[in-house]
Amino acid sequence: MSTWFEKHSVTLKKALDACSKRYAWSAYPESPSRKIHGPAAASAGKSHFESLLGQDYPLTQPGEIGRTGAEVSPYTRQPLGISYPKIDVNLLYPAIQQAMPAWRDASVETRTGVCLEILDRCAQQLFVNAQATMHTAGQSYIMAFAGSGANALDRGLEALSYAYKAMKDVPSSAEWERDFGAAGSAKLHKRYRLMPRGVSVAVCCATFPLWNGYPALTASLATGNPVVMKPHPSAILPVALFVSVCREVLVEAGFDANLVTLVADTREEPATLALLQHPHTAIIDFTGSPSFGNWIEANCRRAQVYTETAGCNSVVIESTNDLEAMASAIAHSLCQASAQMCTSVQNIHIPANGILVSGERVSFDTVTEALVAAVDAHLNDAKTAAFLCGALVTDDTYDTIARLRASAQKHGRLLRDSGPYSHPDYPDARTATPLMIELTQAESALYREELFGPISFLIKGADAEKCLEGATRDARECGAITSHVYSSDPDFLDRAEQAYNLAGASVACNLVGMPINFAAAYSDFHVTGLNPAGNACLTDLAFVASRFRIVQSKRLATD
Amino acid sequence: MSTWFEKHSVTLKKALDACSKRYAWSAYPESPSRKIHGPAAASAGKSHFESLLGQDYPLTQPGEIGRTGAEVSPYTRQPLGISYPKIDVNLLYPAIQQAMPAWRDASVETRTGVCLEILDRCAQQLFVNAQATMHTAGQSYIMAFAGSGANALDRGLEALSYAYKAMKDVPSSAEWERDFGAAGSAKLHKRYRLMPRGVSVAVCCATFPLWNGYPALTASLATGNPVVMKPHPSAILPVALFVSVCREVLVEAGFDANLVTLVADTREEPATLALLQHPHTAIIDFTGSPSFGNWIEANCRRAQVYTETAGCNSVVIESTNDLEAMASAIAHSLCQASAQMCTSVQNIHIPANGILVSGERVSFDTVTEALVAAVDAHLNDAKTAAFLCGALVTDDTYDTIARLRASAQKHGRLLRDSGPYSHPDYPDARTATPLMIELTQAESALYREELFGPISFLIKGADAEKCLEGATRDARECGAITSHVYSSDPDFLDRAEQAYNLAGASVACNLVGMPINFAAAYSDFHVTGLNPAGNACLTDLAFVASRFRIVQSKRLATD
Repeated sequence: MSTWFEKHSVTLKKALDACSKRYAWSAYPESPSRKIHGPAAASAGKSHFESLLGQDYPLTQPGEIGRTGAEVSPYTRQPLGISYPKIDVNLLYPAIQQAMPAWRDASVETRTGVCLEILDRCAQQLFVNAQATMHTAGQSYIMAFAGSGANALDRGLEALSYAYKAMKDVPSSAEWERDFGAAGSAKLHKRYRLMPRGVSVAVCCATFPLWNGYPALTASLATGNPVVMKPHPSAILPVALFVSVCREVLVEAGFDANLVTLVADTREEPATLALLQHPHTAIIDFTGSPSFGNWIEANCRRAQVYTETAGCNSVVIESTNDLEAMASAIAHSLCQASAQMCTSVQNIHIPANGILVSGERVSFDTVTEALVAAVDAHLNDAKTAAFLCGALVTDDTYDTIARLRASAQKHGRLLRDSGPYSHPDYPDARTATPLMIELTQAESALYREELFGPISFLIKGADAEKCLEGATRDARECGAITSHVYSSDPDFLDRAEQAYNLAGASVACNLVGMPINFAAAYSDFHVTGLNPAGNACLTDLAFVASRFRIVQSKRLATD
Repeated sequence: MSTWFEKHSVTLKKALDACSKRYAWSAYPESPSRKIHGPAAASAGKSHFESLLGQDYPLTQPGEIGRTGAEVSPYTRQPLGISYPKIDVNLLYPAIQQAMPAWRDASVETRTGVCLEILDRCAQQLFVNAQATMHTAGQSYIMAFAGSGANALDRGLEALSYAYKAMKDVPSSAEWERDFGAAGSAKLHKRYRLMPRGVSVAVCCATFPLWNGYPALTASLATGNPVVMKPHPSAILPVALFVSVCREVLVEAGFDANLVTLVADTREEPATLALLQHPHTAIIDFTGSPSFGNWIEANCRRAQVYTETAGCNSVVIESTNDLEAMASAIAHSLCQASAQMCTSVQNIHIPANGILVSGERVSFDTVTEALVAAVDAHLNDAKTAAFLCGALVTDDTYDTIARLRASAQKHGRLLRDSGPYSHPDYPDARTATPLMIELTQAESALYREELFGPISFLIKGADAEKCLEGATRDARECGAITSHVYSSDPDFLDRAEQAYNLAGASVACNLVGMPINFAAAYSDFHVTGLNPAGNACLTDLAFVASRFRIVQSKRLATD
């Protein structure tokens, strides 16, 4: 077991260094290229995925009282037909309790080694994970491979590195000696012992099933807590595959498989509350809607609660030296993963009298036209559109689009209508291109919340300062995970950084020529915890330091 | 300002090293000896204290709407006659808000330097602090000087060291560069900024006004949060003196004094709830009763809450090689500070058939007699009794003693009655010697809570295992801050350590020849957070890591 720690020690050391210096690095392969993985890997992954369809998922856990699961592929619109254990939580928890002592008593190195091996094995099943992610979360193949593969695993390794660092901050023993004058003197041997809090529940989301799942698991498991993975009902398979890896590695290491379990459910028969409210649930990691996240923060007092929810991510455009590049970068965010990412942009604030482009004034309409044109350019052939947009995770999004389309006609102007695009490989894919609506700040009631899916607002503000004021107020009051500013005026950039930071939001300036939705493990502190879009950060010391406690014993050395 | 950081950098470095290795160390003088402080220091401190009596305390703060304060010396039973600002919290908070930005924007080194200087200046007023602590908290002179002086300041420095370490874990900037293949490439400058959470309220207790007050203040202030100190109504003066030092240092450093403020009150007109429930209160440090602590944990959801309350600290006696030394050590805990310390022992579990002393069986009654005799020995002359016991902080304790005396007569056996001892310097001192009651485990309803003051139970268990079982169950269910085991059997010690640790309690084994109540800064993790006696630990990364958050900005490097 400790050999796994040694086997992966270079990786851990590098991850710790990357966390400290925050440069770009990945421990896992981002590209599905056959040059890296060999000619058969992709098809083997696909075959593996297909072999799971229509079957009982091979997972045996205590407390199974039947089977559940109703996943539907966003690409084929057909049920996956996979069934998972339906779990009675009150039967599962005693089995988890039994698994705890040996894991609690294992060394930091042993637990960390197991987690490192888990991540490494997940990196060896990226192709089947990509298929599973596509056909549940609706991600494009490349996003499912990289964004839900290496990029997500890196966040898991990052969280593990912080957990390791926090645990190693506590020595295992000390010698203590002092004189109390007339009251005596003493020499004590002291021993410090890290104790887990209890059962950790990770509630995963539909669109990126493991991006928060990996770090939640490694942070809790490394610090000694068993973890129950609770996938979203529409995206169970990627989580199930992960749970299988965890259980396999744990058993190989001589531990009880029930240290990591899966509680799957359906929309109709949800299981989440039974987990969140169980008296032995001590830690909750939640990714999902702001309303449920807020409810958990307010009501699950017994547990340590870490949330990432959503806000209304904004862009403020003040000026630029390259209108086309800027429009392309923003449009990329509107298209990527059909704007179902927590980093997708929604609210684009533009001054009513336009902006300076390389010193020349350009009208508001010219800017919005550039954005619409840039979206169209990203979608101009079906293959690119498919690569970029993927599919919608839920039919509900069509309803949201229809509702907003109607609102737009009443309160604003429809700049670009949403419609399906034809997926080259999956004719039945559930797709939608960006709906783009022009509004004024007077219509803020429409956009001061996350509208899940490819819906964006081009918001006319009186001037750049009013745009910034509105965007940062929304960030403070309604939440933001990413925020962007485009300006060629250094003073405005400074003011914008300050305004967003004081609103409790991070901000990116003038990003072009790269996918602006990208949040980098080891470098970007993801979610500030200072606005309503979540209370936790991936990943920092605060994310890990309270997942364990310290008990000590001291003995008089003359024993 | 940064020069203070440099001035105290050796101290900080040493504190960081002590926290890592957890050896015995103090940064401040523990002894009031005139050899250290000169011949005039003690009397100057006393004069300073006396000059404050019957006066308006010299403190001007925004929101003053009158004067308040009704402290009574536990030694003279006379009112101190000192009045403090009575504060309208809703007028105070806007002034605090104004003070925040400059402090938030100061460097980690500047803020840490200010905190180091504050602690250093407090160390220069230990004599007046000792007088103030005696005549409010009722501590003996030596305890007031050392326990509420160096020992408490050390905890402040320890918390500051952890805060510094956690903040320095976040770099201030990074360069990040990567290639996204077809999607582009980018080089970003990133800047990471530490943000305070908001107003931090430290609710101090009556018996050790600053032992938690120093670490709460340094942890919050260093991480950028303004701090409102809320003293217990009966022990305001030590906190007021501390607040004055903080404000003086802040102003010298060019900051707003209102970064540290005092909100004093009386029992009749309490001000605590207005602070805890203020929407801008973001952090709460509470020391006091379990019931109020639990209420805060359950109800103050908006804030980060750190509590240290109380439990029913236990001793399990299985065997010993030195009955007299053991009895003396336990008796010391029953007497010290009239058992008003959070580390005072209350429940002493002894097997019904007695214990082995150096291999010879000794009866239950012999053990209890030894404990009673040891208490009497500690009190056999008035000077020693005064030195050890100090005075009671409240008259309420007499009621508790009377109530328990009556209970003992009904449900158990009174082994030692409590009565006043004559204080050699203060004939009117509010004193009480230990009340010692013999019970069986069947009477556990009487002892499964903290009975504040010099009240202890000698609890007969069927055997040593039952004693351990009962004591650890009480720790788990009712809380424990310290726990002791005496045994010459290494196997029993191992079992006892395991049982206490699994109950979420730290444990000390066979401590003799030293004050067993002593909790050592930089070495003892005080309060585990795993049992009902509090949710926070003095001091670890978890105590500091969530007191600040991180926001970032990133800019395209081609700007």
